[in-house]
Amino acid sequence: MSIPRLTACIVSTGEEVLRGELIDSNSAELARQLGEAGFEIQLMLTAGDRRMDLDFVLRTALDRAGWVFMTGGLGPTEDDLTAEVVAQLAQVPLQFDLPSWQHVERRFAEFGIPLTENNRKQAMFPAGAQILANPNGTAPGFVASLSLAGDERRVVALPGPPREMQPMLRTFLASLPQARKATHSFMRFLGIGESSLAEAMRPWADQNIELGYRAIFPELELKLYDASEAQIHSLRAFALENFADYLLDFSSLGTPELFARYLTETGQTFAVAESCTGGLVGKIITDLPGASAYFLGGVVSYANSAKHDLLGVDAATLAEHGAVSEPVAQQMARGVRERFGADIGLSITGIAGPDGGTDQKPVGTVWLGRADAHGTAARHRQFVRGREWVRTFAAHDGLRWLMRDWLQARWRATVGGG
Amino acid sequence: MSIPRLTACIVSTGEEVLRGELIDSNSAELARQLGEAGFEIQLMLTAGDRRMDLDFVLRTALDRAGWVFMTGGLGPTEDDLTAEVVAQLAQVPLQFDLPSWQHVERRFAEFGIPLTENNRKQAMFPAGAQILANPNGTAPGFVASLSLAGDERRVVALPGPPREMQPMLRTFLASLPQARKATHSFMRFLGIGESSLAEAMRPWADQNIELGYRAIFPELELKLYDASEAQIHSLRAFALENFADYLLDFSSLGTPELFARYLTETGQTFAVAESCTGGLVGKIITDLPGASAYFLGGVVSYANSAKHDLLGVDAATLAEHGAVSEPVAQQMARGVRERFGADIGLSITGIAGPDGGTDQKPVGTVWLGRADAHGTAARHRQFVRGREWVRTFAAHDGLRWLMRDWLQARWRATVGGG
Repeated sequence: MSIPRLTACIVSTGEEVLRGELIDSNSAELARQLGEAGFEIQLMLTAGDRRMDLDFVLRTALDRAGWVFMTGGLGPTEDDLTAEVVAQLAQVPLQFDLPSWQHVERRFAEFGIPLTENNRKQAMFPAGAQILANPNGTAPGFVASLSLAGDERRVVALPGPPREMQPMLRTFLASLPQARKATHSFMRFLGIGESSLAEAMRPWADQNIELGYRAIFPELELKLYDASEAQIHSLRAFALENFADYLLDFSSLGTPELFARYLTETGQTFAVAESCTGGLVGKIITDLPGASAYFLGGVVSYANSAKHDLLGVDAATLAEHGAVSEPVAQQMARGVRERFGADIGLSITGIAGPDGGTDQKPVGTVWLGRADAHGTAARHRQFVRGREWVRTFAAHDGLRWLMRDWLQARWRATVGGG
Repeated sequence: MSIPRLTACIVSTGEEVLRGELIDSNSAELARQLGEAGFEIQLMLTAGDRRMDLDFVLRTALDRAGWVFMTGGLGPTEDDLTAEVVAQLAQVPLQFDLPSWQHVERRFAEFGIPLTENNRKQAMFPAGAQILANPNGTAPGFVASLSLAGDERRVVALPGPPREMQPMLRTFLASLPQARKATHSFMRFLGIGESSLAEAMRPWADQNIELGYRAIFPELELKLYDASEAQIHSLRAFALENFADYLLDFSSLGTPELFARYLTETGQTFAVAESCTGGLVGKIITDLPGASAYFLGGVVSYANSAKHDLLGVDAATLAEHGAVSEPVAQQMARGVRERFGADIGLSITGIAGPDGGTDQKPVGTVWLGRADAHGTAARHRQFVRGREWVRTFAAHDGLRWLMRDWLQARWRATVGGG
């Protein structure tokens, strides 16, 4: 049977996957990148470390597609059979590759680990294979050609560790003439689900623009493939007109990265008063290195007494309005700004659940406060879907709220007009 | 070819997996649970929504194992072909099952959604199949028997959503006479890697005790299968003697859950002063609902001025010893304990990297402080492997340090002696 050229099967090998100790994220990453490059994926197959199983899945895969992309089995141990099995299928011998061996030697020398005779294995490839350099690890990958009933097939063998596999795959696809070099651009959203956005974008999907959605909790990334400059421009203007409440950026930057740029560009410092988020805002901000340039710190005022003692929230206000209320949010923001001497103060107080909700303030009720040189403001939100969602959305929503004007200027600078 | 009874292949179906939009966590969960039940997994296979592909992977799987466990394709749409394809392979017609239909009707009524004719499909099964109830969703699963070259084979079809699949699988395995009902017990560790622990445990692995390791970042869970009471006891005593520095518990509870129990059982309140962890300790503690019973809050003193202004750290001490130092850690812990009126105060100050390290205080240097009614203490740690690891280990290490005595008493209560 003749098979169109850009069909592929994905094969992974490794006992850890068959034992359920490892979730096979490599295959998902391969599927995504190959899909973008224009491959149509037929099947995914996983075998353990037995030769007969690996041989079987490779034969099965080669029977079904023009390309087989496989991960794993390139290590130095006896269980690592990829090169051997592929050579056998291609009916060629294994061949020693001196530059690859020198690469292995260099890697071991760098880490001061003694080389063993086993490691020579990592420089043996099916004769005639194209060797794929591995700048991030020991084992090079390879591409072997073989023919099946007169049709040419290719096996692309990649290493198992994701940080070695992913760059090698990208480099290979970039060098492959048949692969689609998608020009793509991104948009990023917060607070809108994939199905709602996809529904609204339907007119664009009908115009030869391929749209890809990717949930990066709690955000949503939209990727536009092969759109012209004019189409990208119209689509951005459309998003700005219809989804400004959910738009983050015309890029793949997320809330924390954008917030770091906002503070850096505007030269402001920041402090946060957290109640229901319990430290999550500070954690997100300090996940990024270099945060000390703009993040002074925060108070986690989980107990009401801490809202009063550490942030100066008025006891009467607490008693009258409750901890989850507009005036308390405002006083928390003002208090944390003053105590840290920050340019901007943010506060978050809410009911994350599962308990603690009332009819008037159900689980998911959140009040946010902001304070800067111009004064204070508050914002009410009602989040859904449980504790983790409420907390995560509240933290991201608060940061986006603070940089709203800056984001709008950034959008306009991209889309133009005014 | 005759195949031993407890061999299995795992099949998943769904375009989202082939497109890389979804990582196939169902197959990993199946592999783990089937492995525990004594099945030997041969292959994993994934097909999209095309009938010929699903038919092909099922045939391939049935050819290689006595059992095929599959997920997905039980929904009401045209793409959902599982029952149809299995019936064809088993050479039986599809049959309507009234109780299943009544279950579907009830589920829809509960959610107030109108039923369509399509939904009748979810009550159609290969004739003679055993039907598996789905208390968590609409689509029941089923077990179909078929014979292949005279040998009996079984296909177990489970729904795709993990929260429906997992309980159905557990119920099915519990009812299966051939399945191993593993008695197992857990140990949980922090700060030791899988390879080191496995090496030290080798003598036990040679004694017919099967050991399973599972990394739950930053911790490590060890599972003992089918060990006798006496063996479990000896192994615990061995761990206590050799790994007390890394042991968390003789259970699968992690640091945050144990810390919550520690505070609850001892009736103490807690506050935290965080520098390099930036709010992570508070975040971890408040991930658990009910934390307000013992967690008063914290100060994230990312800037040095905040260590002085909000926690009362002496300016001269800061200048002389630096922010990452024993006296500053102690003063931070004392300060946060006093300001929150907490029974226990913890502090964490360190260099998370990638920048900011010096020869004397390289990246990964962390000082922890504790303060309670008896006084203050400090602890020095040197963590490795980058910002995320340093921060995560520091947070977990700090919490374990605080409850060390309580943990030891808990271990002794389990192992006995003294």
